[in-house]
Amino acid sequence: MKTSVRHLYHQYQDYQDKSITLMGWVRNNRAQKAFGFINLNDGTFFETIQVVYDDILENFKDIQKLRVGAAIKVVGSIVLTPKRPQPFEIKASVVELVGDSHEDYPIQPKRHSREFLRTNAHLRPRTNLFTAVFRLRSLLTAIIHEFFQSRDFVHVTTPLITTSDAEGAGQMFQVTTLDLNDVPKENKQVNYTKDFFGKKAGLTVSGQLQAEIFAQSFKDVYTFGPTFRAEQSNTLTHVSELWMVEPEMAFADLNDDMDMAESMVKYIIREILKRAPEEMTFLDKFVEKGLIKRLEKVLDKSFDRITHKEAIEILLNSNQTFENEPSHTKDLAKEHEKYLIKHFNGPVFVRDWPKDIKAFYMRLNDDKQTVAAMDLLVPGAGELIGGSQREERLDVLEKRMQEMNVDDTDLWWYKDLRKYGSTPHAGYGLGFARMLMYLTGVENIRDVIPFPRTPKHCDF
Amino acid sequence: MKTSVRHLYHQYQDYQDKSITLMGWVRNNRAQKAFGFINLNDGTFFETIQVVYDDILENFKDIQKLRVGAAIKVVGSIVLTPKRPQPFEIKASVVELVGDSHEDYPIQPKRHSREFLRTNAHLRPRTNLFTAVFRLRSLLTAIIHEFFQSRDFVHVTTPLITTSDAEGAGQMFQVTTLDLNDVPKENKQVNYTKDFFGKKAGLTVSGQLQAEIFAQSFKDVYTFGPTFRAEQSNTLTHVSELWMVEPEMAFADLNDDMDMAESMVKYIIREILKRAPEEMTFLDKFVEKGLIKRLEKVLDKSFDRITHKEAIEILLNSNQTFENEPSHTKDLAKEHEKYLIKHFNGPVFVRDWPKDIKAFYMRLNDDKQTVAAMDLLVPGAGELIGGSQREERLDVLEKRMQEMNVDDTDLWWYKDLRKYGSTPHAGYGLGFARMLMYLTGVENIRDVIPFPRTPKHCDF
Repeated sequence: MKTSVRHLYHQYQDYQDKSITLMGWVRNNRAQKAFGFINLNDGTFFETIQVVYDDILENFKDIQKLRVGAAIKVVGSIVLTPKRPQPFEIKASVVELVGDSHEDYPIQPKRHSREFLRTNAHLRPRTNLFTAVFRLRSLLTAIIHEFFQSRDFVHVTTPLITTSDAEGAGQMFQVTTLDLNDVPKENKQVNYTKDFFGKKAGLTVSGQLQAEIFAQSFKDVYTFGPTFRAEQSNTLTHVSELWMVEPEMAFADLNDDMDMAESMVKYIIREILKRAPEEMTFLDKFVEKGLIKRLEKVLDKSFDRITHKEAIEILLNSNQTFENEPSHTKDLAKEHEKYLIKHFNGPVFVRDWPKDIKAFYMRLNDDKQTVAAMDLLVPGAGELIGGSQREERLDVLEKRMQEMNVDDTDLWWYKDLRKYGSTPHAGYGLGFARMLMYLTGVENIRDVIPFPRTPKHCDF
Repeated sequence: MKTSVRHLYHQYQDYQDKSITLMGWVRNNRAQKAFGFINLNDGTFFETIQVVYDDILENFKDIQKLRVGAAIKVVGSIVLTPKRPQPFEIKASVVELVGDSHEDYPIQPKRHSREFLRTNAHLRPRTNLFTAVFRLRSLLTAIIHEFFQSRDFVHVTTPLITTSDAEGAGQMFQVTTLDLNDVPKENKQVNYTKDFFGKKAGLTVSGQLQAEIFAQSFKDVYTFGPTFRAEQSNTLTHVSELWMVEPEMAFADLNDDMDMAESMVKYIIREILKRAPEEMTFLDKFVEKGLIKRLEKVLDKSFDRITHKEAIEILLNSNQTFENEPSHTKDLAKEHEKYLIKHFNGPVFVRDWPKDIKAFYMRLNDDKQTVAAMDLLVPGAGELIGGSQREERLDVLEKRMQEMNVDDTDLWWYKDLRKYGSTPHAGYGLGFARMLMYLTGVENIRDVIPFPRTPKHCDF
């Protein structure tokens, strides 16, 4: 019967005394004189399965020559191997070549640098690390949908091409069908009436504003889709195309927002540890020692919650020398975040930020100096989540837009939401890749995204 | 206790003799002299709940004046109403205004045209039709992920910004950070080395080619993400930004592909009918009479499978006059599809299409004239799914690319997949919005997408 490595691993007892058929790829082939071993991976499971073949097989000599990377079909039966790390192997009665692998196959059974593998992004999912990481990525997708769907959140796909540049000032990609060799102009300026949408359009940096529309109808909603950044940043955490999760809740304030974020993070960790134990053990061993313990620790306690003001006090009273002086009017630097995480020995929400360094849509607090925003700082990843209660009062919103020079011509609908049944509402954004880095211990965002886009890099 | 309309509808018995708190929006307010009725919707459920208030409440006069669209908080208790269509209503002890609604609120309790509602895409989710449609859209998202995840398919996010234009010739949006008022040139041509990615880039029309990469590692994978079309089409079925589902399976041929597509369609229909009975009943009543019966009929039978050749024979022998003459070398016209669907009285796969009208990556059949492609035609929607077995033989693939003038410089990695452990593999594409139209009976694609993008339309 046809089966998969995944099923065999979890239920090999069911397959005893049965003829088994497996299709997969050779990870390694160790040929001896009268027998040999193939490590077979079929992509359904992180681990390989050991296939034993011997010289009774009529194509034994061909099998001995099977190269790493070749696609094969194996028919055989289970042999228990109680003394090995794995409880069984497959004794082959048939090994057939499906698709050969050239000698220059780049992914040989040895250690390859991550840089090398990035230039072979079409083959790196065939390595242990990336098999684990990208399977976790898929699982994380499923878990996030489950979390929100089981709480009656409505998923909404917000638009990616947009004409409103409220948040993206200077960081947006432009989208056009104009011929760049011959741009149509009027009064020496681009004539956008000739462009596909009849005006200047770009790729969105966030689905939040449109998610608010849906929250004002469905109460609890979430986006889970791509966003874009045209930043010229070459760091370990920046890419130009990234998926985000953005829940938005009507009749909710900043405390509800933090509650939801905390529940979500804990749910994700619990489910990942439960449903991918082999992958997590592997990552704990080879990528970040202590990974599982670090994550388990998060489950045990309530996340601390402090104001930005309190955070600055703690930093100022720390007797620590920082490169960046902590300030009540400024953002937290990475070094500050690290100190706070250590200080609280776990995740901590920092709330109520100075209004001048935050976005126009965040709700002005009664002190008129701060807004109801929050960042979640976590051990190992720094800022994991950023959110806020949104300004639901039309007059206050309009004043803030003026203060911050936000062009509101394309945001008439956003203001309408404050005219017709406005509610206190709140939401947050989670960078999907950031979450995956946090869960896997992988330090470069390019290694948790199948085909990352960064300045000058748009291959595959 | 705080609850939702959804919970009340399904478990109102649990809430009897309890004080209930609901937050939502006024859909209608019918004030009488000494009492009144509010139809409250809180977005968690398709239906409204009837709230009864009377003049014992100290703010009775204010409640009487509550306008349609206003956000309110209601505290009350359940009263059984056995003779009404609904089994209960809420007797209010508190009705509080949360957010007022201006008098000019566009969504009054009357019939609005779909055209009008499209220009109010920020408010239309507050109408019955769009509450139903967009809730189904969210449910469909969950069901599709469930279908594939429960079969061990790995979800992969394929890139949206791409430099390979293999499929999109002339239909791609360009993505750039160049200043269109002052495009840098060299030899009178755009100097793309100055652009963000160092070369010309655009928005993808399909994730398939990259999904093949993952299939050659994980065996069974699927994408579920946006794709783009810069077509100047203003039809009922074309938009510029659309989500697609693209499964891809290694060690699979065209029959496996059709099997999977048929399973998926049936699974989706079964789950939608089971999990959204109220929405489906509403759509059956107000959008397409007989909708549920049409869908249920699909569950009963195996989908027919014919070749393109057989399809043409059937059309030629039909004694029917078509505007487009059926031809063995041409695509099927809409009228042909309709005839075939009627002829088979249900869904039908058409396979083995003439190679010259199909894409370069489809597997050449032994007759050298046709490729192993399939379209699924279904009653009510025409072509719902298109797929193919992919060409796994490097030499044949290269020959086809030459024949069809496919520029392969940016597709070296695609050819590599045929060098290293190539396998017979197959996949298909499902337009997510198309599926939703099929399930809801809604005839304009602009009405199943929250914020549709079409030529000259990029609002919200």
